[in-house]
Amino acid sequence: MMTTLSSHLARLALLGGTLIATSAFAQPHALDAAASDPRTMGWMTGFPTAADRVIAPPASDYLSFPKLRWTFCHLREMQASRRVSRGLGPSSAMTSAPDSAIESLSFTPIGKDSDMTWRESLDANYTDGILIMHKGVIVYEYYSGCLNQAGRHGAMSVTKSFVGTVAEILIAEGTLDDSAPVTQYVPELANSAFGSATVREVMDMTTSLVFNEDYADPKADIWAYAAAGDPTPKPADYKGARNFYEYLQGVRKANEHGEVFRYKSVNTDVVAWVIARASGKDFLQHLEERLWQPLGMAQEADMMVDSLGTPLAAGGLSLGLRDAARFGQMMLQGGMYDGKRIIPEAVVTSIAGGGDPEKFASAGYSTLPGGSYRSQWWALHNENGAYSARGIHGQAIYIDPKAEMVIARFATYPISANAYIDPTSLPAYQAVADYLMGK
Amino acid sequence: MMTTLSSHLARLALLGGTLIATSAFAQPHALDAAASDPRTMGWMTGFPTAADRVIAPPASDYLSFPKLRWTFCHLREMQASRRVSRGLGPSSAMTSAPDSAIESLSFTPIGKDSDMTWRESLDANYTDGILIMHKGVIVYEYYSGCLNQAGRHGAMSVTKSFVGTVAEILIAEGTLDDSAPVTQYVPELANSAFGSATVREVMDMTTSLVFNEDYADPKADIWAYAAAGDPTPKPADYKGARNFYEYLQGVRKANEHGEVFRYKSVNTDVVAWVIARASGKDFLQHLEERLWQPLGMAQEADMMVDSLGTPLAAGGLSLGLRDAARFGQMMLQGGMYDGKRIIPEAVVTSIAGGGDPEKFASAGYSTLPGGSYRSQWWALHNENGAYSARGIHGQAIYIDPKAEMVIARFATYPISANAYIDPTSLPAYQAVADYLMGK
Repeated sequence: MMTTLSSHLARLALLGGTLIATSAFAQPHALDAAASDPRTMGWMTGFPTAADRVIAPPASDYLSFPKLRWTFCHLREMQASRRVSRGLGPSSAMTSAPDSAIESLSFTPIGKDSDMTWRESLDANYTDGILIMHKGVIVYEYYSGCLNQAGRHGAMSVTKSFVGTVAEILIAEGTLDDSAPVTQYVPELANSAFGSATVREVMDMTTSLVFNEDYADPKADIWAYAAAGDPTPKPADYKGARNFYEYLQGVRKANEHGEVFRYKSVNTDVVAWVIARASGKDFLQHLEERLWQPLGMAQEADMMVDSLGTPLAAGGLSLGLRDAARFGQMMLQGGMYDGKRIIPEAVVTSIAGGGDPEKFASAGYSTLPGGSYRSQWWALHNENGAYSARGIHGQAIYIDPKAEMVIARFATYPISANAYIDPTSLPAYQAVADYLMGK
Repeated sequence: MMTTLSSHLARLALLGGTLIATSAFAQPHALDAAASDPRTMGWMTGFPTAADRVIAPPASDYLSFPKLRWTFCHLREMQASRRVSRGLGPSSAMTSAPDSAIESLSFTPIGKDSDMTWRESLDANYTDGILIMHKGVIVYEYYSGCLNQAGRHGAMSVTKSFVGTVAEILIAEGTLDDSAPVTQYVPELANSAFGSATVREVMDMTTSLVFNEDYADPKADIWAYAAAGDPTPKPADYKGARNFYEYLQGVRKANEHGEVFRYKSVNTDVVAWVIARASGKDFLQHLEERLWQPLGMAQEADMMVDSLGTPLAAGGLSLGLRDAARFGQMMLQGGMYDGKRIIPEAVVTSIAGGGDPEKFASAGYSTLPGGSYRSQWWALHNENGAYSARGIHGQAIYIDPKAEMVIARFATYPISANAYIDPTSLPAYQAVADYLMGK
């Protein structure tokens, strides 16, 4: 029973963006960045791998630190997946002009008195890969742990921002009406919490849902959600929902929708379902046709799926670091890339403008004061107008329009909640932005 | 119980190259090529897919015809997989000069009196994709069903020929001694049938193994092999081997090794283990470094794995049709491609020369009279010196040195055994060769 629960817990860590860090994940600094490097740990090496170096289901800990530092580059080896095809064209060129001054830039971590350098922040954050673009040129690029330029890394809830961007594309094109009720596209959700929600409310997560993400509670909704999305055959005595679509139909309403932002991954699955119904293609197909192929992504991407092949909209994408940066750079450029329009400018305007900070405030994100959430993206509402895609354990695509800077980062911080990694990353990003603006 | 058995049956169909077609697979012409086209069948379309259009475990039939016509392009969606990386470089250029005369070439199928055209053979063979190269130029290219140029298809036992090629590379480089006992590399096999076999014997499948591939027998060894290789968590009451390496250690010897060829997939798994131990890298890594990247493959490939991440050497590869042709063309050119040496010429000489037809004769391959098996490749010993990689349901990379012709084909013939598809393909290939030699 514990194995099953822990396995679900682990699976859910892929999906959730909750602030709650529990004992299963809260092992901060058990091993530092160097000691937890999967090359040092020797996971999955040898023929066969020694029993204590194996990372695979049904062991319950394949998504817990430090094994997670290996797993994040190998998610497709854990379960069924679909690819996001890049097509057969050449990859788009990227220009590098490394700026060695960045390494020694210093900043003050949130809540600390002493400074830290950029380089020190990488280990503090268990960074697997980070890339900084300034005015479209790569000025910094770093890989560690399981990752290299040709590798891919779990994006976790950064996946949500890709989903939200696709939804905004359909809105800009008139295929999707964000003021319409969800049920206009998905009548099956009529009797669920989403039966009284608009498309905009699920996009902005201002729905009010009974959806318990308390990992310590074995009866929490999150377990049922995880079990529903598990693509492997269900146990004989399994009684729950058998896929994401089934699960969503049972989500109950809490209070009124539209009043406050509450981060619940199931909203993204609803957005994805709405996209599919509105357009006749699921968001993975849109990623291929509207982003991966026109952007000239250098690598295809992997997407985890449930037993019906439905993508894990809330967190199932693995992609290359440079490709994450390509996407961010396209957003920075208002939807343009290499002189071509990739997505409508209105998409970027809607996302970059952010949501309603008043609805966001009570959600309690201490590292994002004055922030907001819009179309599956996080807006900082800082002086630079920065906004970001964010995933647990430190995944990010951070866009700073004023500094003309994009940062793509993959990491494996031991605790899932970004509240623990933001203190040594958000001010670091600002320090780089300040430096680049002064060049 | 039937579900479990059928599921294993299905899984094994991926691996076996047996001549035996049983009731589970022998549904010839239940639906013709057009009627069984997955686009017509509507598999896995809609959000969600209707229950009777779903293809996924635990249903027992995802690898049976006609669902197989969809599954063959979607194997990674069924289970865990690893990628074969193509790296980040450009893909190698291919030149096309379509020859429309090929469509109407005619030939006499083996055992028939009336002729058939090349074009007719494609539907007769349930061809998903076929590509003909002549003197390095694509003269014919066709896709149907689930496949297109940017797609990938299960190669089934064509995978074995990639494994055999890697082994020959290591032999040519002096890293592997094919006259050495298997136990020199894998001492763990000492007490198995392989304990008295040489590397060459497992490469050429002249081992004598107790390995029952009778699908009608629920106690056949093939079920235990399949269950061992299944990457999903084992049932609580499971008592068998938990991965391929464990399984191989229990394979028993029948008669003397070295006397006759008998096609048993487990030999390939031993070759793969020997490769890994001899070189410190598994054959998937060799595929990346020695073939995918230097050949400029246009797509990465997918490889099914067991619970330890060990590749299914006997049949786990999915790749693009053009990439299969690139590999074949390199073989045709004695290991050269685009003017560069990719693999030692001795590798091609060893494989193209074939094995011992006398050891092959009693195996009963009626469509390959006078043939042989060498290093996981099939040699026809015909006038043109043709040799081929072959996988169930019609997968092939066919190399005709005299005609300077390479044919790569993916198909989903309703019966697994190539004895049923050879009659309308081997003479068709010869007809094209004759035509091209006369140009």
